Amino acid sequence: MKLEFSQENLLNALGIVSRAIPSRTTNPILECILFDASEDKIRLTANDTELGIETEAEGTILERGKVALNARLTLDIIRKLEGGTSSVTIESGENFAVTIRCEDSVFQIQGRNGEEFSYLPQIDRDNYICLTQFTLKEAVRKTLFAAALNDTNKMMGGIYAEVNGDTVKFVALDGHRIAVNNVTMRETYGSAKVIIPGKTMSEVSKIMTDDNEKEVLIYFSKNSILFEFEKTIVISRLIEGEYFRIGHMMSHDYETKVTVNRLKFLNSIDRATILIRESDHKPIILNIRDGGIHLTVKSSYGTMDGDVPCTKEGRDLMIAFNPKYLLDAMRVIDDEEITLYFTNAKSPCYIRDDAESYIHLILPVNFVV
Amino acid sequence: MKLEFSQENLLNALGIVSRAIPSRTTNPILECILFDASEDKIRLTANDTELGIETEAEGTILERGKVALNARLTLDIIRKLEGGTSSVTIESGENFAVTIRCEDSVFQIQGRNGEEFSYLPQIDRDNYICLTQFTLKEAVRKTLFAAALNDTNKMMGGIYAEVNGDTVKFVALDGHRIAVNNVTMRETYGSAKVIIPGKTMSEVSKIMTDDNEKEVLIYFSKNSILFEFEKTIVISRLIEGEYFRIGHMMSHDYETKVTVNRLKFLNSIDRATILIRESDHKPIILNIRDGGIHLTVKSSYGTMDGDVPCTKEGRDLMIAFNPKYLLDAMRVIDDEEITLYFTNAKSPCYIRDDAESYIHLILPVNFVV
Repeated sequence: MKLEFSQENLLNALGIVSRAIPSRTTNPILECILFDASEDKIRLTANDTELGIETEAEGTILERGKVALNARLTLDIIRKLEGGTSSVTIESGENFAVTIRCEDSVFQIQGRNGEEFSYLPQIDRDNYICLTQFTLKEAVRKTLFAAALNDTNKMMGGIYAEVNGDTVKFVALDGHRIAVNNVTMRETYGSAKVIIPGKTMSEVSKIMTDDNEKEVLIYFSKNSILFEFEKTIVISRLIEGEYFRIGHMMSHDYETKVTVNRLKFLNSIDRATILIRESDHKPIILNIRDGGIHLTVKSSYGTMDGDVPCTKEGRDLMIAFNPKYLLDAMRVIDDEEITLYFTNAKSPCYIRDDAESYIHLILPVNFVV
Repeated sequence: MKLEFSQENLLNALGIVSRAIPSRTTNPILECILFDASEDKIRLTANDTELGIETEAEGTILERGKVALNARLTLDIIRKLEGGTSSVTIESGENFAVTIRCEDSVFQIQGRNGEEFSYLPQIDRDNYICLTQFTLKEAVRKTLFAAALNDTNKMMGGIYAEVNGDTVKFVALDGHRIAVNNVTMRETYGSAKVIIPGKTMSEVSKIMTDDNEKEVLIYFSKNSILFEFEKTIVISRLIEGEYFRIGHMMSHDYETKVTVNRLKFLNSIDRATILIRESDHKPIILNIRDGGIHLTVKSSYGTMDGDVPCTKEGRDLMIAFNPKYLLDAMRVIDDEEITLYFTNAKSPCYIRDDAESYIHLILPVNFVV
């Protein structure tokens, strides 16, 4: 095999597929990227068996063939070659000895037989939806923070996606809070309910562009999901099982409704967290009255009191939260003003817009005044 | 005590003195910054007994007094207060309970009695030199990398400064290499020989500006050194003992002289290091011939060969180095072209300019071809 690339094109393709390289593995073939130029195109693939990414790299095939190369080493070498415009040749010889050349530098590294590499599985392409890449990235940004990626309950480490006609609902939760993002699509599709691993959503999100015009096709099959955009496909296993029933938790009743400037509220809570260490489990106490929310934090480091003006309907209320959960939710909302709904000091707080494009449920914590 | 500051001025002063706060200590007063407004100025001081920093903060004294405040907590609070222009008041009450107010936020934290705090020692101001802050920063940048801050030999963790009339020589070494920076001053002074702790030089360097007009006064006493610039003074203990005699190592004989483009040589060595892990101790082999240096690295990851054009005088030579030492030296040189002097494969290499404003000595390592 002998291929020629511009440094920039090769680096770009390597950057995409290397996201499926596991950070730790004892199986050396999983640390490799397959360069497959056995047909008319140059395809780069990485596959850790949970998550697989394949992309087409722009370049010239001088001699057909395929070889698997250590991802980290190859990426390091290409990244350090001079100038973005230099041309790079990758040539594999006897016993998969590989020569990488660029201007005055010649690297010799040991490749592996491409036949050892497990290709991405074929996926049934019947059931799918189409979103803009921007919409999917935003849905991930607005929900993934609420997932618990390292929880023993695997389902808490996933994002639940529920397709129903022209809408798709994304949900993540960790037992203390729920984040919901509702998206309306341009066309109407069938229905699907899947739980996608958080890591998959995170990597897909990093590869996609912010471009609001470019689309991504998402194909659902029984055990797998496939994302297709531009010259890249990402395949991931799904998390098996039935997701938490969140419908009955999404109450619309409330006793107190508060509208507040998001940034003012966020900054005030953020300042209060200076006095709280994660291990402290100290809550922030909100005293909601006509005209304003009074915030209080007490810890071994000291106390902080703050006031944020608000518009209040309904009863006065004193309620306490883990400030991190309030901050996380408020940071992913784009609205200048946000509305919070409360029932009592023991019931969840909801932050949602009127159209329910987003809903954040946050459980309160106990407190002593 | 009651003081008023603009957030920006206070943050600036806190940022300077907090560089003398030790990262780990069991003595809580060492974690504090002293706010002293017992006279007409507001002085902030931190002192870990090795290194002490005092600066004057711009602000208004509403009530005289002094109090010591936890540095990290105070810095966190002031940093998070809204906008750079808000005014901040710091007021200490009974039992050194301190209230920090800014707009809608009120923090209460526990201060400590300012009398517990050890002031900076008085230093004799007879023997001194004057440099621009830029010159001193550059001298640190160009030598400190060669010091061994964690070596059991404390002297290797320092920068040696030798004043002689209108010149000052800065030296750092770690047993494998020596970096020398010779500075010519605008005026003529006496003489001094001191070893300044690397940490002191590093912190002073971070506090000073890049401004080539602003000056720093450096006072030498028997056991201490004092840096004075703008509204700040830094006092540090010196490392005791007699520094290594490097004079006899600074040979001017050579058998091979090579002039090379610094960036081309640096980039080529940098690429080669991709194949070397720190723990490997694999050398880079330079094969110096008419017209070019051929570089070779062999490791368990593969091999790399590179060619860098050069102008050579004298004998051909094959010599090997720890590539890190070559890179470190070349990164702090500003010249486009550099000249390397060699005697044989067992003798040190020198990189120096004709005026000897800098000299880098690097020991070679053994190699097998």
